[in-house]
Amino acid sequence: MPTPDSVSTAAGLSNIPWSEALALIEGDLARVRAVIAEQMATPFGSINRLLQDVSAGSGKMLRPALVLLSGQCCGNLSPHHITLAAMAELIHTASLLHDDVLDQARIRRNTATVNVLHGNEAAVLLGDFLLSRVFALGMEFDDPRIGRTFSATAMALCQGELLQNIQRQNWQLDEPTYLEIIGGKTAELFGSCCSLGALAAGADSTAEDALRRFGIQLGLAFQITDDLLDIAGREDKAGKTLGTDLDKRKPTLPAIHALQTATAAQRTELLQLLSGANDRPRLVLLLQQCGGLSYARSKAIHVCQEAIRCLESLPDAPARSALIRLTEGIVGRSA
Amino acid sequence: MPTPDSVSTAAGLSNIPWSEALALIEGDLARVRAVIAEQMATPFGSINRLLQDVSAGSGKMLRPALVLLSGQCCGNLSPHHITLAAMAELIHTASLLHDDVLDQARIRRNTATVNVLHGNEAAVLLGDFLLSRVFALGMEFDDPRIGRTFSATAMALCQGELLQNIQRQNWQLDEPTYLEIIGGKTAELFGSCCSLGALAAGADSTAEDALRRFGIQLGLAFQITDDLLDIAGREDKAGKTLGTDLDKRKPTLPAIHALQTATAAQRTELLQLLSGANDRPRLVLLLQQCGGLSYARSKAIHVCQEAIRCLESLPDAPARSALIRLTEGIVGRSA
Repeated sequence: MPTPDSVSTAAGLSNIPWSEALALIEGDLARVRAVIAEQMATPFGSINRLLQDVSAGSGKMLRPALVLLSGQCCGNLSPHHITLAAMAELIHTASLLHDDVLDQARIRRNTATVNVLHGNEAAVLLGDFLLSRVFALGMEFDDPRIGRTFSATAMALCQGELLQNIQRQNWQLDEPTYLEIIGGKTAELFGSCCSLGALAAGADSTAEDALRRFGIQLGLAFQITDDLLDIAGREDKAGKTLGTDLDKRKPTLPAIHALQTATAAQRTELLQLLSGANDRPRLVLLLQQCGGLSYARSKAIHVCQEAIRCLESLPDAPARSALIRLTEGIVGRSA
Repeated sequence: MPTPDSVSTAAGLSNIPWSEALALIEGDLARVRAVIAEQMATPFGSINRLLQDVSAGSGKMLRPALVLLSGQCCGNLSPHHITLAAMAELIHTASLLHDDVLDQARIRRNTATVNVLHGNEAAVLLGDFLLSRVFALGMEFDDPRIGRTFSATAMALCQGELLQNIQRQNWQLDEPTYLEIIGGKTAELFGSCCSLGALAAGADSTAEDALRRFGIQLGLAFQITDDLLDIAGREDKAGKTLGTDLDKRKPTLPAIHALQTATAAQRTELLQLLSGANDRPRLVLLLQQCGGLSYARSKAIHVCQEAIRCLESLPDAPARSALIRLTEGIVGRSA
């Protein structure tokens, strides 16, 4: 587990512990990518050309990895796991398409976003299409728990995003409300990936619940780290537009914590900078001086440790070790 | 059945045959509205305040009416019909939320749109939320055909909207492609409402199929009429922003037909006006002179007649008569 001061400057998957974790499921991830490609096709050539610019399956494939590794923790993988993993990535891709419209983001996965290439209309509609496709896939399973989990997760995701939207410019937002927001918008899907992977491998409810709790903690750590990188990261490493939270006046953990620990003078300046004064370097310096950046980093590490503790009840196996390395890799991004 | 020249200047429901059709299911529609209100609530007060401005259940309730009347054509209504009708209205509301963002519409159902009141972000996310809620409701049915129908319909809806988006500014678009677009974006949901209403009443496959075909024809007629009103209607009567198709350079039937019948000089002027010259009255006059408006009106009436023919195999009953009156009322809007 990295400490708040440890440094990993690696950006590519190949340089972080995460890639090692994925090695165990490399062949399965290729199958997931094939299912995603299948699902990104319609009877209409003109729509398919748009879908080619939706970079599903080209990202970190973190959510599919959680489905597959959780499955391996509890038994053998089946074709169901491949479909579930594809569904998880597709629902994530749908939400990215809409996010990028809302954030007016221009770069995603090192390439121009769909809203930039084809306009906001196409991006919103393609997101709707992928969301509908996920539900169509959910209806193909005999077990109704799968469709129910995906629809509940999609609702939680929307609720989290809506709460975040409502709380924009609210610089009095507290940490528990922030955690509730990122719990809905990110962590629920992580938790669902893990519990569905377990479910499809025939896990008992104890193991399924442990993995679900692991996924939720991991999702929280992932989003805290993502929010930290949005402030203090580098676009060339992240492969996407950064600074959108600040642009959109979204209170995230570094600002929430800094505003609590700041002196009166620092607080006044912080509020001025957060509310629109166009001096990003000064804002980042102030967030650092007030301990906001290091606090968020420590919090991510702490939540990752909690995530790993959720795995203790599971038998020691390569997949469990891979989940632990993946967790370490995720929080290592922020160092 | 009105002729192309018949005139119905009525705007409110109470003045058109449609309202008479709804009288048969008035109590059931009230139950549908109650289910919609239930579904428009989350555990979060701040989200619920946004949802209050989403005017679901306050519109024409045409899609719920189709579910209920189709059910009555085939047997007795059950609580399932009420839920299905609510789902149909919610999926329609979700698509309106996204449409209004895409069209930058400012008025819907005689009130300011959610995108105007709360921003595009909230409108997109609330649409996603309602779509997810529909799928969650679909998972509560034992019969998987219900969830499958809704997810297939949602996909068709997105595909139709995407095709329309792709074909913007394509003034060579032909009538069959136009019909394919409106088939996906509007008629599929109409067809699904009718077939699900029949299914839930225990209809045999012949009756279910007849009602599905009726719904699809009705949906085509409805959209042709809607597109005609977008050009030649009055906002105070329509209760929503008009002219958005022309603003967004969407080829609809009046323009498609007018461009085919126009003289070379008219065609040149039409293309100039359609491509952005800001003279709406001249454009409407030219579309009328080239027969585009009357052709679209005749086409809507013809498709309505086909819709009514689909009902011939069903037993004569008050619900069937109501569907016929509703069909006449829909096409009467354009007269």
